This record gives sequence, structure tokens and C-alpha cells, in this order.
Amino acid sequence: MKRREFFRNGTLATLGATLFNPFNSVANVLNPIAANGKAKNIIFMVSDGMSTGTLNMADLFLNRKYGRSSNWLGLYRESRGTRALMDTASASSLVTDSAAASSSWGGGVRVNNGSLNVGPNGEEHKPILQKFKAAGKAVGCVTTVPITHATPAGFCINVGSRGDQSKIAELYLPLKFDVMMGGGNDYFSAAKRKDAKDMYKQFDLNGYNIVRNRIEMMALKPGKPILGVFADDGLPYTLDHNQDKDLQNTVPTLAEMTKTAIAIMNKNSKGFVLQVEGGKVDWAAHGNDAGALIYDQIAFDEAIGEALAFAEKDGNTLVVMTTDHGNSNPGLFYSDKANANFDNFQNFKHSNEWVLKQIHKGDTAGRVIEQISNAQNIVITSAEATDLLKYYNTVDEAGLYNEANLPLRKLAEIQQKYTSVGWGAMEHSADYVELAMFGPGSNLLKPFVKNTDLHNLMLHATGMM
Amino acid sequence: MKRREFFRNGTLATLGATLFNPFNSVANVLNPIAANGKAKNIIFMVSDGMSTGTLNMADLFLNRKYGRSSNWLGLYRESRGTRALMDTASASSLVTDSAAASSSWGGGVRVNNGSLNVGPNGEEHKPILQKFKAAGKAVGCVTTVPITHATPAGFCINVGSRGDQSKIAELYLPLKFDVMMGGGNDYFSAAKRKDAKDMYKQFDLNGYNIVRNRIEMMALKPGKPILGVFADDGLPYTLDHNQDKDLQNTVPTLAEMTKTAIAIMNKNSKGFVLQVEGGKVDWAAHGNDAGALIYDQIAFDEAIGEALAFAEKDGNTLVVMTTDHGNSNPGLFYSDKANANFDNFQNFKHSNEWVLKQIHKGDTAGRVIEQISNAQNIVITSAEATDLLKYYNTVDEAGLYNEANLPLRKLAEIQQKYTSVGWGAMEHSADYVELAMFGPGSNLLKPFVKNTDLHNLMLHATGMM
Repeated sequence: MKRREFFRNGTLATLGATLFNPFNSVANVLNPIAANGKAKNIIFMVSDGMSTGTLNMADLFLNRKYGRSSNWLGLYRESRGTRALMDTASASSLVTDSAAASSSWGGGVRVNNGSLNVGPNGEEHKPILQKFKAAGKAVGCVTTVPITHATPAGFCINVGSRGDQSKIAELYLPLKFDVMMGGGNDYFSAAKRKDAKDMYKQFDLNGYNIVRNRIEMMALKPGKPILGVFADDGLPYTLDHNQDKDLQNTVPTLAEMTKTAIAIMNKNSKGFVLQVEGGKVDWAAHGNDAGALIYDQIAFDEAIGEALAFAEKDGNTLVVMTTDHGNSNPGLFYSDKANANFDNFQNFKHSNEWVLKQIHKGDTAGRVIEQISNAQNIVITSAEATDLLKYYNTVDEAGLYNEANLPLRKLAEIQQKYTSVGWGAMEHSADYVELAMFGPGSNLLKPFVKNTDLHNLMLHATGMM
Repeated sequence: MKRREFFRNGTLATLGATLFNPFNSVANVLNPIAANGKAKNIIFMVSDGMSTGTLNMADLFLNRKYGRSSNWLGLYRESRGTRALMDTASASSLVTDSAAASSSWGGGVRVNNGSLNVGPNGEEHKPILQKFKAAGKAVGCVTTVPITHATPAGFCINVGSRGDQSKIAELYLPLKFDVMMGGGNDYFSAAKRKDAKDMYKQFDLNGYNIVRNRIEMMALKPGKPILGVFADDGLPYTLDHNQDKDLQNTVPTLAEMTKTAIAIMNKNSKGFVLQVEGGKVDWAAHGNDAGALIYDQIAFDEAIGEALAFAEKDGNTLVVMTTDHGNSNPGLFYSDKANANFDNFQNFKHSNEWVLKQIHKGDTAGRVIEQISNAQNIVITSAEATDLLKYYNTVDEAGLYNEANLPLRKLAEIQQKYTSVGWGAMEHSADYVELAMFGPGSNLLKPFVKNTDLHNLMLHATGMM
């Protein structure tokens, strides 16, 4: 959806116009959605592991390439919605993992890193989608990582350790949540699971409608709970997905999953609560994979576009936009070529992960240069290519193709010269993070919140507390 | 000033209490200062080069060491004031320098990096303190870097290049601004200037009251324009200042300069406009000097405390808190020891710059370990000490003591293991940055602004436009 369409009925300052107008205070901006009403529906959008630079670079990319704002920052530019800083700590650390972070929202209580809604003494905090389901709402999650991953799981279930995704798949079975879609075939397929259980068969027997590719998803009708699984592990990066016709036919985008989930769940007379996760933003940050990061953040922003378009039309939907924690704090840093370097991302065709998988032990520096040039339109030096090859020639190749062993950090360091994007680590950060709300209930948001505050806010916004 | 004192008459949620209260929306929080009135005074606070992690880590440090919030984030926690994201780009780059950034506020027009209120065709944009001075207000700047540095200069003068600080000192002479204080003896002293001009004598002849140390500053009385110069270049880092009785007697803190400037300028019946810069926050970020950064950000926050205490009592003062751009995007990153590692900063006695100056060519690894342990209570390994020494033993020592040649990056990399703080670069970033306002005129702030918007906002807030 184009932003112009979304705001077709709105009162729009264009990007070029001055954004400061002393005669038109925030409260006077026309906003047909009351911020203080009661929400029937909630769409909770999580760009996982989004540092402020990630939000910012996606917006700068869209500004420079298309002359438009991201949907998220477009809300701010139009003085619509409310925003806050959020403290993301867990019970065990200033730096949360995704399990504790999602539990803070999902269960309303900080737990130790790694845990999903289970406290240090085994106490279980009821996940928010179970509360909403019990109240008659349709509930669900869509994500670009396995649907059994920490962020959706934190809204759905209780389990001491996030690590056992096969178990999490089993815990989903009796919930009969309305829409659960993402990757994660590894945890449902009899051929992939260690215990050889056929979870698809179990879900089918339990009344689920199971879809395994985009075409099946697009044909979905309401009526039965839906399980959608479109990849073994996470879905491909948007950047790689864009280049592969087969992937485009088989794997839906996050925006498509979001639109589908909304359309199906909106049939429920008592409303719905949907979590939408841009999970591969976090994976890209862990990999210091700047192209993958920017394009997946934009894909997340397109899902925001779907959510906002629905909320704008519906008038009874609270949209929450945030992240669970920062990750690696990327930034576009100063150089006399910073603008041109940043514009190189417009010509990227593939993620760093994809490129590094094309390189093999024994390759020449020339071949490495060509691979990277073909995939990213950047010509690295022979010395840099040789430096990168060292990782392949000194590491056992079988081990190398374990993704954790790809020289992602080294490539990011080399790339910084060409893109001006740098990284502080390959880990989550303790940064306070951006949080925005649009629609009824958004007035409940204070300027500074703890992650746990969102649990009760969602219950209050829907009149359940 | 303690935050408790500042908020002694306020409506306070303590840090431990829940910050979400659905029955008490933002608009209902008691705030004796009208946000929509006209401002008589403006205090414009700039933490130079403050990435979001810098703001955040200072607040986390104060939380963990003293159980209190920073003054800046305390405003948010109390739902007081307004806040926005600010786009900091310059005319020439997505990544601004401090000259173009200060010019955007000071002159209201984006100029190329390096320029102070002079456009590409030589056009001059009148600096905002000249406008306020002409309207009868007292005006001035205080900073922890040379008073001739880019951030104060952007509010005061027009010059094609920021580099010639000796010339900037001369440009200040005829302005007769009410208070100009910071470092920069190198640009005023006949012994230091290339042209051997005695600028102190010139300022004295032109009617200025000149102070050269803290005691003289504390004894200042209103009446004459004031020039205060307390160091050759920038003032010492707060961390080093705290350990040195001589420095404490001779060099004022930013909070002391702020309090003094306010007290003097507040005697003017038509009000005042003061810029306060925590300039060494930027220098610490360029040096990836985490201890220096956190303690200087806290020193800046103490200056915010002075500004807010005055504004709270006065009722006619708009306080603006922001930064001109991110720098190096530091973060506290995940490790299983992240909390304990971060708490190491509580035992720091010196900046990295200070420590590295204690190390000399030919030192043993043992001596390096001891120096760092004494200064920062961290015991690095022998291999790490040897790695650090390489920079001294392979570089000409005379060159080494040029600060740019200190192995600041290497020490930051070594430290990351012990502090969990990492850095993305040693340069400014294009991040959209935090901006907050308190007091009359703060209602004019939109959720997303360009840096240039602040120029007219200040004129509107004071009724001059």
C-alpha cells in the first residue's frame, strides 16, 4: 500500500513542506480516530531488535529513494498518534532477550532471560492472548521467524526455556488460536523433529486449517484456526526474497500475512488481537547485515501500513508499534561520501548472508570481488577479498556453512568503508526504545514506560481491566 | 541539585512505582507551568554528539548507583514537558557536523558542514542570539569546550569556516554578549595565538569583565559583559576533574557555569536566552571513551537540573534539551555479565584519554595493567596490555602525545569485554535524535521536526515572530 493511499483522506503536510506551524498545534491536527475511546481490536507490531538507527535508516532510505516517509515516522510527521520511550530490561539483566521481553508484554511480569512467562520459582503468568481468547476475541501471531520463536511465544504460552521450539509447537496445539503464521517447519515436520512427531497431523486432527505456501494462504477463508508455516526456520530476508520468483510464489511477505490475518480475524464479532513480528530485523542486526536490516525494516513498515490502513478505516483498532530491545546499534556514520555510500543500498540485490554462502574454500580473490559486486554493486579491494577468504581457508568448510561461522563481522567491517554503516556489537543493547500508538487507547501511553506496563495498557484499552 | 529537591512540589511517581496509571492521563498530571504561554527566557541545552545510548546509559548509571532518574528522563517519567525526534542533516550531508547543526538552529537555514551561518553563495543568516540581543534580551553561551567552538559560535556569528577559532574570538568582540564562558585560552592569549594578539586586552578595552578561574567566576556580579575562559582548549573531562583538587578550584562545572549565567542574565528586565553545551560528550564519543562519556553526560544532566529548577520557579522560561547529532552510537550490549560490567563505571577514576597519557614507550605490560587498574579498577590481561603497547612502541612518541594518535580505539575494544559498552565508529551519525522541551512554548513542539524548525520555534515562543 502506498502511503499516499493510506492518507488519502487525511490532512497532509508533504515531506517537503515545513513541519513546524505554530498556528496548528498537535491537538488541532485533524484525526478522525479518537485516542481516548475503547479499542475493540489491537494490532501489536514488533520490529525485533530495532535500534534507533534501524528505524532511522529505513526512513532515510525511503526518503532518498522514493521521496516519502516510512509509515511509522509518517505518523510523527503528521502529528498523529502518541509515542514514548520504553525501558526494556528483563528480571535478570539490563539487556533483555526476546523471550523475557515478549513475556514482559505477554505476561505483565519481568522474567529472567530465556524464560517465557515463567518466574524464577516456577510461577506462571497468564499470556495475554489466552486472556483475550477467553474474552471471546480472535487472537493470533504472524512473524518472519519461526512461529515457535520467542516473540510470538511470549504472547501465547508458558515454558521455562525458549530453546525447545518443538515443545512450543506442541504447546500451541490445544490453544486453537485463530491465526499462527511464520516459519518453523523444523518444529512441526515429522521428518525434521527429533521425536519424529508429525505436528501437522496433530494440528489437522485438532481442527486447524494448515497452509504451507503463499498461494494457499491467499485463498484462506475464516472458520477454522489457521497454522501457516512457510519455511524450515526463518523466512528469507526480504532482500533475497525480492530476487527469487520461486520464493515470491511460495513465501508471503509480512505485509501479506498481516493483511490476511486481519481480514480473517476481523470476522469475529468481539474483535481480535494480533501480534506482528518483523523477526528477521533482529537476525540481520545479529549478523551486522546492513542491507538485510534496512530492507526487512522496510518490509516491517509495509506491514505497519496494512495495520494503519485497517485501523484508520475501522476506527476501533489500537495499533502499537515498537521493538523488544535494541540490537548492535547500527548507524550511518560520517564520511565525506556518506550520502553516496548510503545510496549504495539502493542497488543491493542480496543480503551479506546470501553473498557469504556463495563463497567457498579455495575461491580466488577475483571471484570473491565479482560475487560481491554482482550481489551488492560494491567493488571491494583485492586485499579485502583475501582477508575475507582467510575465514574460509582456515576453517573447516562443513563448519563454515553453519551460519554462525560465516565471516559476517569481517564483511560488515569491510563494507563500512563503502556504505558508511557501522555496528557496535553483534548483540542486543540496553537502549530505551521507541514506542508509538495509534487509535483508541493510545492516550493511555505515558512518555516513559517499562515494557511490563504494556500488558495492563492493552487490557485497559480494550475495557478488560 | 538533587532531583528530589527539584520536584519537591511536584506530583511524583517514584522510580519503583508503576508508571502506568490509566486514570491519570498525561494532560491531567499536575504541571504548574503552562506549556502554551509566552516565554520570557530560553535555556537551550545541547549535549553535543549524544546518541540515544548516551542518554540511556547516563540514566541507567544514576538508577543503579543512586536509585534515581536523570533530570532529563525524569521529566518523561513524570509526564512533564513535550518531546520529539529531530532530523539533524546539514545542507551537504545526512551526517551533520556541529557547525552546520548549530547554524540550523542559530540561523534557521541548513548550511554545508563546516560553515557557521554562511550559505554556499556567501549569504549570511542572522544568528539567533543577535536577534534576541537586538530585542533587548540578555544573551550568552556556556560550554565545556572552547567558547569559540562550533556549537556556541553557531548561535552568535557568521563565518565561512569553523576552523579559525582565533578569528571567531575576534568576531565575538563587538557583540558584547552578556555571558560567554568555556575553554579556549588558545584563541585569546597573546602567547598562544599565531598573530600574538592579546584578545583579553581587547575584550577588556571593549568593556568586558574577564574571569579566568572558578573563584573569579563565582564572585561575578551583573553589569558588564562577561568573558570566562578556564582552559587552553576544552575543559577537562568530569571524570578527571573529580579527581583533581586543583582543577576543581580553578575550573567550574557546567552546572556552576549554567547557574552563574542564569543568575546574572536574569537581572535583565526583558529576559534572557542562554545556550548551554555539554561539548565534551562529543569529544568522549569521538574517543570511544565510555567512562568520560557517561560522567560528562551526567554533568550535562546536572546543568539541566539547574535550568529546570530555575524554570520551575520562574514560570516564564522555556528549557530546550537536545543534541546536535548522534556520535558513534554506543550501547550497553548483552553478555551474561552485562550488569556487573556496566557497574564497573562506578569505580572509574579517570578517562581513557587520561590513562593512555600515563603510558609511555618502553613500559612493561605489568605497568600498563597497573595503570589501568589504578585508574579504572579493571584488570586487563597481559596479552591485551602488550597489544596496547604496540601503538606506543611503533609510533614516534612525540607524535603519540598528539591526542589523535592515542590508541583510543584499541583501548575501547579491549574495554568492551569488561564494561559491555561497544561503539559503531568514532564519528557522528545520521540518527534522528531526542529533543525535549519544558515550560511556556513547549506546546509548539511537533513530534517530528527538522533542526531548522527550532529557530522559528524560539522566535514564536518568545513572541518575536
